[in-house]
Amino acid sequence: MDVRDFGISIGEMPHGKLNSICDVAGVKVGHCTIDTTCSKTGVTVVMPCEGNVFRDKLIAASFVLNGFGKTLGLVQLEELGTLETPVFLTNTLNVGLVHDAAVEYMLDLCKRDGITLTSVNPIVCECNDASLNDISLRAVHKEHVFSAIESAAVDFELGDVGCGKGMTCHGLKGGVGTSSRIITLDGRIFNLGVLAQTNHGRLADLNICGRDIGKEINSTLNEDTPDKGSCIVIIATDLPVSSRQLKRILKRASIGLIRNGSYLGHGSGDIFIGFTTANRLYNIDSAFRQAEYLNESVIDHAFRACAEAVQEAVLSSMLNADKVIGYNGKVRHSLKEFI
Amino acid sequence: MDVRDFGISIGEMPHGKLNSICDVAGVKVGHCTIDTTCSKTGVTVVMPCEGNVFRDKLIAASFVLNGFGKTLGLVQLEELGTLETPVFLTNTLNVGLVHDAAVEYMLDLCKRDGITLTSVNPIVCECNDASLNDISLRAVHKEHVFSAIESAAVDFELGDVGCGKGMTCHGLKGGVGTSSRIITLDGRIFNLGVLAQTNHGRLADLNICGRDIGKEINSTLNEDTPDKGSCIVIIATDLPVSSRQLKRILKRASIGLIRNGSYLGHGSGDIFIGFTTANRLYNIDSAFRQAEYLNESVIDHAFRACAEAVQEAVLSSMLNADKVIGYNGKVRHSLKEFI
Amino acid sequence: MDVRDFGISIGEMPHGKLNSICDVAGVKVGHCTIDTTCSKTGVTVVMPCEGNVFRDKLIAASFVLNGFGKTLGLVQLEELGTLETPVFLTNTLNVGLVHDAAVEYMLDLCKRDGITLTSVNPIVCECNDASLNDISLRAVHKEHVFSAIESAAVDFELGDVGCGKGMTCHGLKGGVGTSSRIITLDGRIFNLGVLAQTNHGRLADLNICGRDIGKEINSTLNEDTPDKGSCIVIIATDLPVSSRQLKRILKRASIGLIRNGSYLGHGSGDIFIGFTTANRLYNIDSAFRQAEYLNESVIDHAFRACAEAVQEAVLSSMLNADKVIGYNGKVRHSLKEFI
Amino acid sequence: MDVRDFGISIGEMPHGKLNSICDVAGVKVGHCTIDTTCSKTGVTVVMPCEGNVFRDKLIAASFVLNGFGKTLGLVQLEELGTLETPVFLTNTLNVGLVHDAAVEYMLDLCKRDGITLTSVNPIVCECNDASLNDISLRAVHKEHVFSAIESAAVDFELGDVGCGKGMTCHGLKGGVGTSSRIITLDGRIFNLGVLAQTNHGRLADLNICGRDIGKEINSTLNEDTPDKGSCIVIIATDLPVSSRQLKRILKRASIGLIRNGSYLGHGSGDIFIGFTTANRLYNIDSAFRQAEYLNESVIDHAFRACAEAVQEAVLSSMLNADKVIGYNGKVRHSLKEFI
Repeated sequence: MDVRDFGISIGEMPHGKLNSICDVAGVKVGHCTIDTTCSKTGVTVVMPCEGNVFRDKLIAASFVLNGFGKTLGLVQLEELGTLETPVFLTNTLNVGLVHDAAVEYMLDLCKRDGITLTSVNPIVCECNDASLNDISLRAVHKEHVFSAIESAAVDFELGDVGCGKGMTCHGLKGGVGTSSRIITLDGRIFNLGVLAQTNHGRLADLNICGRDIGKEINSTLNEDTPDKGSCIVIIATDLPVSSRQLKRILKRASIGLIRNGSYLGHGSGDIFIGFTTANRLYNIDSAFRQAEYLNESVIDHAFRACAEAVQEAVLSSMLNADKVIGYNGKVRHSLKEFI
Repeated sequence: MDVRDFGISIGEMPHGKLNSICDVAGVKVGHCTIDTTCSKTGVTVVMPCEGNVFRDKLIAASFVLNGFGKTLGLVQLEELGTLETPVFLTNTLNVGLVHDAAVEYMLDLCKRDGITLTSVNPIVCECNDASLNDISLRAVHKEHVFSAIESAAVDFELGDVGCGKGMTCHGLKGGVGTSSRIITLDGRIFNLGVLAQTNHGRLADLNICGRDIGKEINSTLNEDTPDKGSCIVIIATDLPVSSRQLKRILKRASIGLIRNGSYLGHGSGDIFIGFTTANRLYNIDSAFRQAEYLNESVIDHAFRACAEAVQEAVLSSMLNADKVIGYNGKVRHSLKEFI
Repeated sequence: MDVRDFGISIGEMPHGKLNSICDVAGVKVGHCTIDTTCSKTGVTVVMPCEGNVFRDKLIAASFVLNGFGKTLGLVQLEELGTLETPVFLTNTLNVGLVHDAAVEYMLDLCKRDGITLTSVNPIVCECNDASLNDISLRAVHKEHVFSAIESAAVDFELGDVGCGKGMTCHGLKGGVGTSSRIITLDGRIFNLGVLAQTNHGRLADLNICGRDIGKEINSTLNEDTPDKGSCIVIIATDLPVSSRQLKRILKRASIGLIRNGSYLGHGSGDIFIGFTTANRLYNIDSAFRQAEYLNESVIDHAFRACAEAVQEAVLSSMLNADKVIGYNGKVRHSLKEFI
Repeated sequence: MDVRDFGISIGEMPHGKLNSICDVAGVKVGHCTIDTTCSKTGVTVVMPCEGNVFRDKLIAASFVLNGFGKTLGLVQLEELGTLETPVFLTNTLNVGLVHDAAVEYMLDLCKRDGITLTSVNPIVCECNDASLNDISLRAVHKEHVFSAIESAAVDFELGDVGCGKGMTCHGLKGGVGTSSRIITLDGRIFNLGVLAQTNHGRLADLNICGRDIGKEINSTLNEDTPDKGSCIVIIATDLPVSSRQLKRILKRASIGLIRNGSYLGHGSGDIFIGFTTANRLYNIDSAFRQAEYLNESVIDHAFRACAEAVQEAVLSSMLNADKVIGYNGKVRHSLKEFI
């Protein structure tokens, strides 16, 4: 469901057609959910473009707002400003395994495309679902990763699915959310889409468009949680931006988290990763590339698009999630029950 | 006046005695205001401690949220994690002159203390007051800097004074604001105080504790402004923290700006500078120093203190400022007229 | 063997007793070497201290000189300035698997110590051994990781062992090298030790203490290699330094690489990771810690120690490595043959 | 004089026509030298391009190798990746004044071009000449800055002139040096030129192409100096590179310093600033710009060009400087006396 179906209206800018990260052409999202008595976890994958992203890389950037997290692959992404694999999201203790599966997937993909791959830099993000999931079981296996890739589609599920199964956001059920905004420049239309894995925030701090709903709910539930966990935000766009410009846009993702009430707690690894499908780095022999870039003086449009879409994606994750009972009997209520 | 006098209550943590940056013992603030037909500008100085700060330096840090600004001195502050002069705030085109005056002041101060100063790193911050002040006149002179230092006191004016004279915040009159929070740890009481120079934000985005007052005012004034300018935040504390910990605290200043409605516009240089009066680096001969540091697991208290105090300091700057008419006839109304 | 046995004398500072990273008390190094027809690879682990490093963490830092590499775990290490696992080194396509094994090891270790581990941040470094090793086989398995941990000792092998099996340095055989320096301050003796995984540099650029030996060898071998690969440097010390100070020390590792002739090629991921066994972060309940820190004015001693030890460790890796013939018949000669 | 006239040959790449930063078309350099009994100081300015650099900015980057320095203007340069003024170099205690003069110059320049300038970000670098210059006199005045600008030419003096008058490099006379390299890609010819202000290094560490000349000289002079001071390197190119790519190139300037024997001492602010005259950011109304960028896979050519040119520029500064006697009678010999 769309947050607008709950009467919530975020910001001023128009939404993309799907109000999803998949409004950016070529982007697909897949999930594999692990939902057993003991395990409430999974894998989500963002396929960033058509074709082989290793051979024809994308311009990318990251911004670490709070680095108390285990995201893998940012050293090279920052140095080169490129993305060369899908982006994977899972739980904290399975990032290594998912990385290993990602390498296997890329080896196979490249082999099929006649490329001898000897080096690859997967991006693997995580949030900690230990409050609902028996994380020490490390339930994610390689087949879950491949299954998530297989299932990737433009039309994907939201809420307590994939990497979102065990998430807790503002003391309620978190998960996977999405949203997008349209930016019109010089008569041309661009999309900026967001996917969020939400596992951050304190219940009492939750605020929706000025309403202190977290305090209201807390007076009922009477169980607050400290601000720990993490929030991962993946931002896709078709705007032609450099990695430096993209990093500036990513910084504004923090606005979305904060407008909903986050205080960026110590224990919350808040990490944002972005890519653009414009100016794709097609494998060429020549020493130079031609590119089109945003005139920095109009970048405010992209800043606001990012802030609004992230604010909405966090709520999308909560409003699409159903109540989940953890392996330990702990209950995470859905925001839907209270709105 | 205190924002609480306007019925506004920000956050959950207790205020310091003065609800001011000067709740941190040793901190004083001085202003020199330049208010002529053409010039609406000035200088503000934060004196960070008793005694000679060059000889006995302070642990410090900075965080550049948006670097479209001209703040001077951050290269060394970042490398060494120390502050060795007062912190100066003025307008964009006078930072060099204020830097030069700061060197002169430090030379004199050190001479009096028997120190041969051959190198010093002043911190000079700025916001752009060109919308009210004929900035090309560059009205600030050295004597204004010395006068601001002379006037430094625990009890200092707020609003459209000193560096705040020509500020515009969310389309209304900005200026200088302050606030503080008390942090109690292991039965000991610590202060975290903030001084803000506010020159950022769009009128329609101003939000006070969930109320979209900016849109209300805009419907009356019918004159919106783009989100450009800058916001400088100076954070003082007596908590024993390392420069790394302090930088993490500073990052949470962004929460304060965003809660009031900022979208961190491209043209806004949002720069935060912090220091602690604990673990002062007394000039010693031995190769080692003893220090006490915060156990990182309790740092959330400082994060929240910073976020709350900055949110309040921005409103403090606006609610203490009177209406100002610029050199060009442009009017900046006071938030007081509308609250 | 020690590089001094080859008549090479690097720098001015005294060596530690072992001239090894294990001169820092508590540090141990283990290898598992995989040497088959097709596989020339392995795992090396640096055990940083006695006891459970997760429970009682170490102060740490990293410096990415060139980020074209896949090192895992730096996001959190940078944010918190702490190390909470051993440091693992392997080949490029096995970092995920080694990460996964590291999590398994830490889960077991913590279980034995009565700690419920739900989050852990392993540090896994890599260089690319694809020129000698059939890297697509991904020969490293979990048991290799555990075996490397098992074998950790103060007295460890050098050269073409462990992660060093498939390394190529300046067109000759690279591998694992080590060295140390002693720093005396206020009459107290401290050690700074280095372990290097060397896989960088062009043959023609190799220079030993001013002698252009690379060009000499190249005139014989007539086979130059481009400057790609990587160099990982692990730096251990017992000097009481903050993570900020440690990062400054790490930057000087670049001096060691460059003195031997590196041009820091685009394709070389040059990544330095350091930790101190001083000021260990024992698990405490109180809100504050006591610590002793270096007076920054004497830090040059540590800078030079780091530069000298890294320069020597690179040569140590080459002079301890024997000739290796790759899976593809490619020969990497040993520097020993030419000196 | 050219270092090649002394029989010194650095590196493998061809020099530009002038072997100077001015091999990059549009670049000019001006000096104003202050040489009195008490003052041995001055100003040097690098004019980066034809026309008004504020209106039509250049892509730029910086790299702070060691931040114990007072360089002004890097916050904005890093955020936006642009240069909008000439680059100024002077002594440590006059950076504020030179900044103020730079603002005055830019106001005048823009006024002549019909631009209302209300904000500008001058770049002002410094080294500390207090060992020869009575720095507390702060001898630089605005007219010296304007005079340096006036005198800017393609053919400029080297050695103990301008900002180089009071410099000490490796215990001998330092100053201003220059060099360049030619990069040929896809049949097109590009230049990378360097200007260095050299005030770093210990005499005993000086090494020229493998010869430990510093130790030789030290045995005669018997007066060593600690490794403090600074080294500023300005790098100009006409290669079409992004600010991210340029930053990677700048990092390789450290190779040049280290090859000559620097240990990057604590007290040495080693700061590198670069710009490209390609892809100039002409003032346009449209939301997008067209640009040509380097294919990252060939960037090693630019890395090596930078390393070689910096190594040579440092020697150029020393070999062009004459012996200078300081205000205090201290003598800095010229390297020319010993080579």
